[in-house]
Amino acid sequence: MDFSEWYTNILKEAGLVDIRYNVKGFLVVLPWAMKTIKLIYRFYEEELEKEGHLPTKFPVVIPESNLRKEEEHVKGFEGEVFWITKAGFNQLEERLVLRPTSETAMYPLFALWIQGKKDLPLRVYQSGEVWRYETKATRPFIRVREIMWIETHDAFATEKEMMEQVERDVRIAERVIWEGCGVPFAVFQRPQWDKFAGADNTFAADTIMPDGKVLQIATTHALGQNFSRVFNIKYMDDDGSEKYVWQTCYGPGISRIYASLISIHGDEKGLVLPFSLAPFQVVVVPVYKSENKKIIDEYAKKLLSSLEGFRVHYDTSEKTPGFKYNYWEMKGVPIRIEIGEREVESEKVVLVRRDTREKRMVELKDVRAKVEEMAERMFLDMKERARKRFDSLIHEAETMKEMEKRLGAGGFVRVPFCSIDIDGKGCYEKIKERMHAEVRGVKFPYEEKPKNKKCIVCGKTANHFVYVARQY
Amino acid sequence: MDFSEWYTNILKEAGLVDIRYNVKGFLVVLPWAMKTIKLIYRFYEEELEKEGHLPTKFPVVIPESNLRKEEEHVKGFEGEVFWITKAGFNQLEERLVLRPTSETAMYPLFALWIQGKKDLPLRVYQSGEVWRYETKATRPFIRVREIMWIETHDAFATEKEMMEQVERDVRIAERVIWEGCGVPFAVFQRPQWDKFAGADNTFAADTIMPDGKVLQIATTHALGQNFSRVFNIKYMDDDGSEKYVWQTCYGPGISRIYASLISIHGDEKGLVLPFSLAPFQVVVVPVYKSENKKIIDEYAKKLLSSLEGFRVHYDTSEKTPGFKYNYWEMKGVPIRIEIGEREVESEKVVLVRRDTREKRMVELKDVRAKVEEMAERMFLDMKERARKRFDSLIHEAETMKEMEKRLGAGGFVRVPFCSIDIDGKGCYEKIKERMHAEVRGVKFPYEEKPKNKKCIVCGKTANHFVYVARQY
Repeated sequence: MDFSEWYTNILKEAGLVDIRYNVKGFLVVLPWAMKTIKLIYRFYEEELEKEGHLPTKFPVVIPESNLRKEEEHVKGFEGEVFWITKAGFNQLEERLVLRPTSETAMYPLFALWIQGKKDLPLRVYQSGEVWRYETKATRPFIRVREIMWIETHDAFATEKEMMEQVERDVRIAERVIWEGCGVPFAVFQRPQWDKFAGADNTFAADTIMPDGKVLQIATTHALGQNFSRVFNIKYMDDDGSEKYVWQTCYGPGISRIYASLISIHGDEKGLVLPFSLAPFQVVVVPVYKSENKKIIDEYAKKLLSSLEGFRVHYDTSEKTPGFKYNYWEMKGVPIRIEIGEREVESEKVVLVRRDTREKRMVELKDVRAKVEEMAERMFLDMKERARKRFDSLIHEAETMKEMEKRLGAGGFVRVPFCSIDIDGKGCYEKIKERMHAEVRGVKFPYEEKPKNKKCIVCGKTANHFVYVARQY
Repeated sequence: MDFSEWYTNILKEAGLVDIRYNVKGFLVVLPWAMKTIKLIYRFYEEELEKEGHLPTKFPVVIPESNLRKEEEHVKGFEGEVFWITKAGFNQLEERLVLRPTSETAMYPLFALWIQGKKDLPLRVYQSGEVWRYETKATRPFIRVREIMWIETHDAFATEKEMMEQVERDVRIAERVIWEGCGVPFAVFQRPQWDKFAGADNTFAADTIMPDGKVLQIATTHALGQNFSRVFNIKYMDDDGSEKYVWQTCYGPGISRIYASLISIHGDEKGLVLPFSLAPFQVVVVPVYKSENKKIIDEYAKKLLSSLEGFRVHYDTSEKTPGFKYNYWEMKGVPIRIEIGEREVESEKVVLVRRDTREKRMVELKDVRAKVEEMAERMFLDMKERARKRFDSLIHEAETMKEMEKRLGAGGFVRVPFCSIDIDGKGCYEKIKERMHAEVRGVKFPYEEKPKNKKCIVCGKTANHFVYVARQY
């Protein structure tokens, strides 16, 4: 089955979204997805707080005049915002936009909060949604008009501290997206023609979806002093002079991280969820006959009490065991426990691992430890498989022809390239036009520099290795 | 200091909100408030999930046609919604509203989800915000245009189950708002002239603010079959006939619960926060001289490690100890620990309780247990004080004159009243006009019935005891 079909099916079969809401690009997120998404949010928030980010909440509406302050920024977003023009029976004096991102909501206040060096660094975040009137085809969690994400906004005294934060953001992504969700990614500094509207530079994490196309799942923007100059965010330095702050903003896309998580680990039987993020971590399926139902239920009680604290579901519905096995495998429950008469008699249970469907008979008294062990082993294996596949999809090429061929295999092709500054845009456009692929930028934080290589397009000296890929 | 002044001051002094955002009625919630608000959300979500509610997320935009389906509902909200009329450079074909509440977003999908009895009861919730173009004066957390809340929406096969859910919602409120936040409240069935637009009946929890005015903090609406009829939400019953479901929706107002929490427990020195909801639960203040700074810092390390898992702040800023004591008392940190040379020498620490400012010298080795003990005792006392005050503000009256006098003392006045059906509205309007007070309804779930009493307004037979109060 091809990925697109698999994805469409699983969204429906596993009860992840309902796409029948009557506004285009707006989804109803169903409980089986929402539970995992809430756990990802919580995990990200904890990591951000450990790094000194404080929780805030800014309004969802932004006055038009705020949005218009930074010229590049408004150009980047004007065509894709929702406009509120009326409230109750009144026309609004000033139109409002539903925030497409919150720089222009937050920074007027940053100007009030930051006075001296003691107010720096400032690090805040908010969890929530942003809205973009996306004109491309929408696809649940991947490209939507209502985007679930987290925004962090930080301000620093120096450019150096700003760049250190960019690296810190990469490490937070590593802890949550890679270590926590098992989604591998690479981080690139984007070319100048592909940066965030109003930023000096954009750094982005890309993962590879099962169809070989790459998906951007988190970005940090080094805003430099562009916003601090227009919003007048200054501090008094030790030498008595006023200086503009250096800013970053960071947006892990929770919707897209979820999309990657389910797509990368899923298999032909359905979802495969990491133990820590599964709505039910364990499902217990009794194998009844009518004469032993009671003793098995009794036994289940003991089992459930020894698994207390985990999210366990005891499936006593009328369906056959076989139906239940398939159903919960499709939903991605990491561990299934089967109990029948034989298990009751021997004081054992059967553990089944979702990904490999490996079975283990374990003593009831050891079940908790064995579940933990299996969960851990399973997640390690899931990560290893994902990493191997990711690494196998990083190719190299030095000619256009070769690049085209490698692109067909999916993933990234590393090629020598003239410039990621605006003067390289012509070469990028040729790649775009001939191969429908994007230049994702140079590796970050450690750029690989070519020696004596020629740009794959124009043949001039190559200053960079860039990664080319077809994108979502 | 009067309450209004206290409230305005504490919002600013303790860094709870910034009211300088340039859209009226929209607040910036600052970290010291947002942390507690997130904890209240989490607490509520856990309790709702225990009661079988599943997390979902519905779009923030609702098409105009959905809103117009239920006649009473649209009348109730049309004058107070924000209208989205344009997206990017395009006029929208159908206008959208920013949801003022989510019935008309959710119920078209409920009609698709519910087919047979096996789909019932349906219990879902979402956490988030709603927006109302409030025309009265706004006040942070109490009356705002961007409201933080949770919505639960439930559907049942029978009216009886619907009413059982209303009672269950009251118990959830008791666990979170009363037991968890220490905010006392009473629940009333609202009169017919004061119910939710489109509901059969509204049941609401009211607390009493320090100025004696009452504040509605959570409501459950028994929607009956009003919405199921217009949105065609039916199930096939065992007898083969199609029946409309019975529905409830429940909206605990997280913004208002937070407002009550800080107002009811606060004192003349500032906030007093329950241990479980405080951003910092413990602050450690070192009492240094320059010659012993090092040994005190060393000692603090031991102390901090024995308090691991709590939210502890070690205040090493340059301020004087006295300044720090006042500052953290104002912020409402439940427990302060003082350490100076004397404490280091005797291997002890001084614990100070925020509410009573009672001091205790305890052994370092016992500090964890003693902090827990003090935290628990403090919260019990906070609850007891709040409950006593609440109970002391429930008065009785049988004449208009007496009622007016009692209303002056704040809180509720219980009076005999003719009818909470629409035929009692005339009597209510007299109370409203003469005393600027509201009829909050009859006690729920156990209504107190008057015997041989006359309505306090019209003198006809009193069918109810109603509670009258001045409201926010």
